[in-house]
Amino acid sequence: MNLPNAFWLVPAASVLALCMAYYFFRSMMRADEGTPRMREIAGHVRRGAMAYLKQQYKVVTIVFVVLAIVFAFMAYVLQWQNPWVPFAFLTGGFFSGLAGFFGMKTATYASARTANAARKSLDGGLRIAFRSGAVMGLTVVGLGLLDIAIWFLILSQFYEGDRMALVTITTTMLTFGMGASTQALFARVGGGIYTKAADVGADIVGKVEADIPEDDPRNPATIADNVGDNVGDVAGMGADLYESYCGSILSTAALGATAFALNGEMQMKAVIAPMIIAAVGVFLSVFGIYLVRTKEGATMRDLLRSLAVGTNVSALLIAVATFAILYLLGIENWLGLSFSVITGLAAGVIIGQATEYYTSHSYRPTQKISEAGLTGSATVIIKGIGTGMISTCIPVVTIGVAIMLSYLCANGFNMEMSAEALSKGLYGIGIAAVGMLSTLGITLATDAYGPIADNAGGNAEMSELGEEVRHRTDALDALGNTTAATGKGFAIGSAALTALALLASYIEEVKIAMERAGMTLTNLKGEIISAADATIPDFMNFFQVNLMNPRVLVGAFIGAMAAFLFCGLTMEAVGRAAQKMVEEVRRQFREIKGILEGKATPDYGSCVEISTRAAQHEMIFPSLLAIAIPIVVGCVLGVAGVLGLLVGGLSCGFTLAVFMANSGGAWDNAKKMVEEGNFGGKGSFAHKATIVGDTVGDPFKDTSGPSLNILIKLMSMVSIVMAGLTIAFA
Amino acid sequence: MNLPNAFWLVPAASVLALCMAYYFFRSMMRADEGTPRMREIAGHVRRGAMAYLKQQYKVVTIVFVVLAIVFAFMAYVLQWQNPWVPFAFLTGGFFSGLAGFFGMKTATYASARTANAARKSLDGGLRIAFRSGAVMGLTVVGLGLLDIAIWFLILSQFYEGDRMALVTITTTMLTFGMGASTQALFARVGGGIYTKAADVGADIVGKVEADIPEDDPRNPATIADNVGDNVGDVAGMGADLYESYCGSILSTAALGATAFALNGEMQMKAVIAPMIIAAVGVFLSVFGIYLVRTKEGATMRDLLRSLAVGTNVSALLIAVATFAILYLLGIENWLGLSFSVITGLAAGVIIGQATEYYTSHSYRPTQKISEAGLTGSATVIIKGIGTGMISTCIPVVTIGVAIMLSYLCANGFNMEMSAEALSKGLYGIGIAAVGMLSTLGITLATDAYGPIADNAGGNAEMSELGEEVRHRTDALDALGNTTAATGKGFAIGSAALTALALLASYIEEVKIAMERAGMTLTNLKGEIISAADATIPDFMNFFQVNLMNPRVLVGAFIGAMAAFLFCGLTMEAVGRAAQKMVEEVRRQFREIKGILEGKATPDYGSCVEISTRAAQHEMIFPSLLAIAIPIVVGCVLGVAGVLGLLVGGLSCGFTLAVFMANSGGAWDNAKKMVEEGNFGGKGSFAHKATIVGDTVGDPFKDTSGPSLNILIKLMSMVSIVMAGLTIAFA
Repeated sequence: MNLPNAFWLVPAASVLALCMAYYFFRSMMRADEGTPRMREIAGHVRRGAMAYLKQQYKVVTIVFVVLAIVFAFMAYVLQWQNPWVPFAFLTGGFFSGLAGFFGMKTATYASARTANAARKSLDGGLRIAFRSGAVMGLTVVGLGLLDIAIWFLILSQFYEGDRMALVTITTTMLTFGMGASTQALFARVGGGIYTKAADVGADIVGKVEADIPEDDPRNPATIADNVGDNVGDVAGMGADLYESYCGSILSTAALGATAFALNGEMQMKAVIAPMIIAAVGVFLSVFGIYLVRTKEGATMRDLLRSLAVGTNVSALLIAVATFAILYLLGIENWLGLSFSVITGLAAGVIIGQATEYYTSHSYRPTQKISEAGLTGSATVIIKGIGTGMISTCIPVVTIGVAIMLSYLCANGFNMEMSAEALSKGLYGIGIAAVGMLSTLGITLATDAYGPIADNAGGNAEMSELGEEVRHRTDALDALGNTTAATGKGFAIGSAALTALALLASYIEEVKIAMERAGMTLTNLKGEIISAADATIPDFMNFFQVNLMNPRVLVGAFIGAMAAFLFCGLTMEAVGRAAQKMVEEVRRQFREIKGILEGKATPDYGSCVEISTRAAQHEMIFPSLLAIAIPIVVGCVLGVAGVLGLLVGGLSCGFTLAVFMANSGGAWDNAKKMVEEGNFGGKGSFAHKATIVGDTVGDPFKDTSGPSLNILIKLMSMVSIVMAGLTIAFA
Repeated sequence: MNLPNAFWLVPAASVLALCMAYYFFRSMMRADEGTPRMREIAGHVRRGAMAYLKQQYKVVTIVFVVLAIVFAFMAYVLQWQNPWVPFAFLTGGFFSGLAGFFGMKTATYASARTANAARKSLDGGLRIAFRSGAVMGLTVVGLGLLDIAIWFLILSQFYEGDRMALVTITTTMLTFGMGASTQALFARVGGGIYTKAADVGADIVGKVEADIPEDDPRNPATIADNVGDNVGDVAGMGADLYESYCGSILSTAALGATAFALNGEMQMKAVIAPMIIAAVGVFLSVFGIYLVRTKEGATMRDLLRSLAVGTNVSALLIAVATFAILYLLGIENWLGLSFSVITGLAAGVIIGQATEYYTSHSYRPTQKISEAGLTGSATVIIKGIGTGMISTCIPVVTIGVAIMLSYLCANGFNMEMSAEALSKGLYGIGIAAVGMLSTLGITLATDAYGPIADNAGGNAEMSELGEEVRHRTDALDALGNTTAATGKGFAIGSAALTALALLASYIEEVKIAMERAGMTLTNLKGEIISAADATIPDFMNFFQVNLMNPRVLVGAFIGAMAAFLFCGLTMEAVGRAAQKMVEEVRRQFREIKGILEGKATPDYGSCVEISTRAAQHEMIFPSLLAIAIPIVVGCVLGVAGVLGLLVGGLSCGFTLAVFMANSGGAWDNAKKMVEEGNFGGKGSFAHKATIVGDTVGDPFKDTSGPSLNILIKLMSMVSIVMAGLTIAFA
């Protein structure tokens, strides 16, 4: 199959991103790592983080090998799938892991350097932290586009001609999305448990009981806590966004292949359009990163403006560029599709602002949680949960409006459910998601730089660099939180839209599986037709996927439950591990005399060990469950049950994820507000109460919440890959 | 229309239930109310409760009058509805309120009498408390059947002949279900906010800060707390179960009218079958109540067995009786339908047992929460949330299996979605829900007697009757918790099944509204037919209610969000009110000298005032929101959007309700476990930590959680009543 010239932008952008990432990495490495004490601590954290990641990858590799064997069996023996599936799955997992690995490696080298630079000035610290974040952002998009380009090139050599060729290619590539999602889920769950066990444990004994500050070297859990920030917030985030990024591009390409199946030329354009938008987004991200310049002696305001300029200009430019890209590509209804992208971007901005409103202590909701600290921890928890639940309203309504608008823009405001209007509308939803993630190169830089600044603060505290340095790193961290809002809004919003696009891909994959199995279906007119010829309404009627079918309803129930069950399991895992950590820290305080006076060194290693073992042990069951549920539902309840499951899981899981993320964020900032001297300030009754809130919020916002967005998509991906099995059984 | 003779069992059962309720009430009133101090306190609580209820009914009356005017406008001016709707709506609300009122009146008279009887013996206390609970149970079922019988009699005089007559009658009667649901929601939300504001406030200052026991007369919030138990746990529960009971019967009757629309004789049988099962259930409940006999000097074990015998024998007998009823009624496939009922009953028992497992401290999950108290309140909260989320698994899977089995049993194991198989299967789901609630007369008695025993304990504590009496009332309370499990399982399970049945009723109501508006639709074969002739698959295809329709998906998102938003609003309301309560109690401790030494009387009135005002003020917005959401979604997204909304709301709301109820229950019992002397016992670090858990759990289990079950059904009822509006707009 001949590829259009425009396609070559994709590998080009990939190479650019990876080169720039390497360049930024080198320039960061040239900075001074500071005093011997700083180097020593950074070394501890680095070794701990790498040791953990190695362990995690071992476990994950076993899971991947087993699954790949299963897929190979299904592909080669049962012929339920095409022969590329096992390989695509493995590369997706491999690249996703690689993205996390590089990001974490960079972060562990950057933290001491950021702290050291912050000893001199705020803007010096920003420069190093932000550039290191950019390494992560560019690595993720570079590896993502690389994997996409390679597979598209390979597969296009093997499939030729008929309208099913591109459909087959794009749905096969979704398997690599499943690999990425599986890896991401393990990374988020494992990393999340690791980091929050250490964080919760360190906070409970250190801050609440022993009254020592965060990251104090006297706290035995402090190294584990800092290691955790790297494996959870950095490596986990990298794998997560790699998954989101590829997922949105791949699912949209698959939708394009179906929506324009009857027009060969247009079909190819529709398939590469999301890739091209993403590629152009890389160029714009690099441009945006260069816009983030700081002057010597810049104030917080300057820095904030500088960061905002970088991200906003990139987002604005991609909005404009989309019109040009789709016009030059000559895609049908390019104007409508461009407006779909605008809708997506606007939705991302609104969700980001709403998140900001509900979680920043510049606004009433979080201020009220701080105030609740005056009446104790119970009211802090009640308020925080209430606020989080209420905060789901704006994002869900925004996503609802975005779904309707991007759908309608893409199909010429056709509300009929004709096969064509439906496919084109769904393609519009997918491309809106791609637009939201296209500038990930820079938005992830502002997101990933937060944990780097946080770690720099930890290093400064442990190296006893003094109040001022710590203040600067805290300011950098706070800066990151503010600018990260838009990026977070894009990530959340695109997850919902991508999951929705994957529903449509599931239907296509079932049709392909039916073709392969030689099954036909009866269309709405009562004629027997080949599965490939079935429209979505035909398909829905044949499989009775309507809301009164008990299989759909039971599926929806199970989907909603799966989201809660998964969260519950990860919460419990953190709780269990944190309890062990608390006991260990208490034991050390009790048995190793002189720790609290700073005369004896605590045994950091045993705390690292507890977190490592807990993460290893506890991540397996929930992750495998996420893979098992769609398979079991598929075998028992069939296609109708799976679609119910995915819709129930998506609607409930998305809302639950927003609730957990926002409750956690609000508690965190409510505590910070008290620490800034409000309601009694540090050490007051309100402070202790808000620390309880923050501690509860830790697994909410960093373990269970972010894993849910992956869970939703992984369940769809598993259903897609297992469509052959479902067809054979049900 | 001639009614079959069997129908007269319904008014007969109603009269029997009400007479027995009156008899038990009189016999309870004959008991001695105890010392002057006891009478005085009971009087305070009674007056407070009645004063609050009066206030609440005032607000609710305004809402009802406004809604009734709207309905009258829709019925008489716009002709979107039939003329009975406004009146049916009003009676539903009136009877639901009456059920709560009588229940509460009884409870407030019974508490001092129970305490007084417990001064002599355990079994004496049980007799009074249980008989008083039975008053509530029998009043609810008696009033429910009365309202049903009256409306069925009236409407059957006005509609005659054609197959639509019974469909119209039964869907009109659903309006009275909406009245009951609206009243129930206000009662649960208002009562729930009242009681938990007082409870949380009393616990935080009394137990945690001042270290005085629960219900201690020195605590200014203690009267408000006891008033709250009555208005929330008794009046709220009464209105709630009245709504569930009528909802299940009415929705099943409506399903029966559609499923057997083509066979006049069978249609009538199918409509009255759920009513007859409920009527026979009343007789069996009365029988069961008489089985609960206690001997002088009975031990806890004896009492437990006695209670269990009463409830289990009733449930067993209704299972057997169903076969006889359906056989004698001569209904088609009576055997299959009977097995549907068995499925429902089995599901209720399993859900009840699972609830027991996750919330009783006889089992590991709750024990682990207690143990987490050793590491502080944060781990208690994390564990409790984790446990609650995990605990959703068994109930949801059980409900899923029950849906499939009761569906399949009722339609002869036909998995095809033919119109007939579908309607008959749905009727089976409905009748399973009726079976679960048919013995409500006795299961509610074991449920309602808990708060009565709890209040008796409060009275004993405040009247300073001594340790032993308090121990006895605590034992009675614990006893109630154990036996109430099955009843709770039935209530939860039937809510899900009823909500599902209401989905089908919504479709019927839309068809009726279309007929009334003179609209036709195109069936699957492409023919234009009258709406009344459309099968469910025709309907689904015409309105494009399939899972790829963005309107359905957006509806599902909003449904899931509505559940969270509603919970969040009620949680916040409790949090706000509790904070005010805490500040007031602290103020009194500070300003009124000698309270803590027992030398000065606290100002109970000001605390009652705070709770009353908060409940009045805060209940309005969430309740109106529940009514507004389906209306707005209907106007904007049409029929497809509404069905998406209801399915999203049902699947997510049900799971969320189970999570909140079980987390709350587990925290409560984890605290009790510590109080029994484990992990340090009363006053220990673990005790304070578990009290925080219990306090957070209060609004979970008594405000937000139980309201959700009503919310789910109310949204369906509103959609049904507003179908005419949806059709006119979208």
